[in-house]
Amino acid sequence: MRFDIVTLFPGFFTSPLSSGLLGKALAKGIAQVHLTNPRDFATDKHRRVDDEPYGGGVGMLMKPEPLFAAVESLPVLPRRDVIFVTPQGEAMNQPLLKQLSTAFDQIIILCGHYEGIDERVMQLVTREVSLGDFVLTCGEIPALALLNGTIRLLPGTVGKEESLKAESFEAGLLDYPQYTRPSVFRGLEVPTVLRSGNHAEIERWRTQQQVERTRDRRPDLYQQWLEEEQGAARVSLEEASQSEGDP
Amino acid sequence: MRFDIVTLFPGFFTSPLSSGLLGKALAKGIAQVHLTNPRDFATDKHRRVDDEPYGGGVGMLMKPEPLFAAVESLPVLPRRDVIFVTPQGEAMNQPLLKQLSTAFDQIIILCGHYEGIDERVMQLVTREVSLGDFVLTCGEIPALALLNGTIRLLPGTVGKEESLKAESFEAGLLDYPQYTRPSVFRGLEVPTVLRSGNHAEIERWRTQQQVERTRDRRPDLYQQWLEEEQGAARVSLEEASQSEGDP
Repeated sequence: MRFDIVTLFPGFFTSPLSSGLLGKALAKGIAQVHLTNPRDFATDKHRRVDDEPYGGGVGMLMKPEPLFAAVESLPVLPRRDVIFVTPQGEAMNQPLLKQLSTAFDQIIILCGHYEGIDERVMQLVTREVSLGDFVLTCGEIPALALLNGTIRLLPGTVGKEESLKAESFEAGLLDYPQYTRPSVFRGLEVPTVLRSGNHAEIERWRTQQQVERTRDRRPDLYQQWLEEEQGAARVSLEEASQSEGDP
Repeated sequence: MRFDIVTLFPGFFTSPLSSGLLGKALAKGIAQVHLTNPRDFATDKHRRVDDEPYGGGVGMLMKPEPLFAAVESLPVLPRRDVIFVTPQGEAMNQPLLKQLSTAFDQIIILCGHYEGIDERVMQLVTREVSLGDFVLTCGEIPALALLNGTIRLLPGTVGKEESLKAESFEAGLLDYPQYTRPSVFRGLEVPTVLRSGNHAEIERWRTQQQVERTRDRRPDLYQQWLEEEQGAARVSLEEASQSEGDP
């Protein structure tokens, strides 16, 4: 899978792209990341990439021409998405990352800077994605989050594929608390059930923790989960009553 | 303001902390970022920081001792917050960043890794913060977002302080579209009103764009904004009727 990051600060990415699991995945060739600087596509002698906003206001905006030229310089793979990271976009979440990791061969990410970007650049963009309801100085951090979260889902990045399953949001619930050695640390004990060896009990405890945590911390997710559970229960009841009616 | 990042991958931060506006703010001394590696506080000869989860499951967890020792090695400033970045936390948003940027002298951010962290480490933590409903390979990216969004709000980071005001989420609305030169690019024109020089008209157009965008893209924010608007209108009506009743 190919990623093209269009950024005024390609140097930003040097150490994050060579650290940890993401660095390993790139070294293994699971994905390729290419950095393109719109400044290389500015045509005036000062290589200007920003200008003042029409209608007044503070700060500078990224001009359209260098961004169009930068994106148009890139190779075109068959299944291609062009993403602008902005607080105005749809929320980045696990279903979106899953879609990106399976439905595309090439993802282009445009990083904004200064006060923003000329709106006409949205003509290039197939999707606006937001990291959340907050403002950062640059689009490079959201771009990195999107890159990391997508590459993480590609086969081979995470050692044991099972570890993708038993985690936050996969079941629509938050994660359960986890413990490792020592069994007692500063008077704090690991819950007895986890040391029992009774796997059915452990499963039950973990699911209960997930449900309670989600209910207490994220009533929105909990409500969604309840509705899906009830839907699933209804379906299986209906199936049961249908098969009872079968000859 | 002092930030302490407790991370197994301090090298991750090298280029992001020296790039762009964040790099400039740190060079100006607006904030200090210190990196602490829990591995330096592991006491066994292999400097082990992870171990298997109690109760079974794939992947490794971060052990409690090196994290406790790393945090306890840090200086203690008067107003201090210890944040663990995790999908189980409260959502990072603009009001939270504003609080962090004003209420604390020192923010410690713990970055998770591997499958997670021993739950007892939460004893050290005053706040769990989530970047969103998705999973990344590491806590370093959310830590960077938190750092950037907080430092951005400190006086001196953003050139003109006004540019902090007219932006996403400050008025509870998304941003309006912006345009810069050229006035026509590939047949796409800058809206006439923005070239009119009529500042009242421009203000009206921008507010209308903000309201419509928020309504279309973020019904949740729009609903909240409507309720606040109605609340404000009610208050000013009540004030008006009270002052009418005054002698």
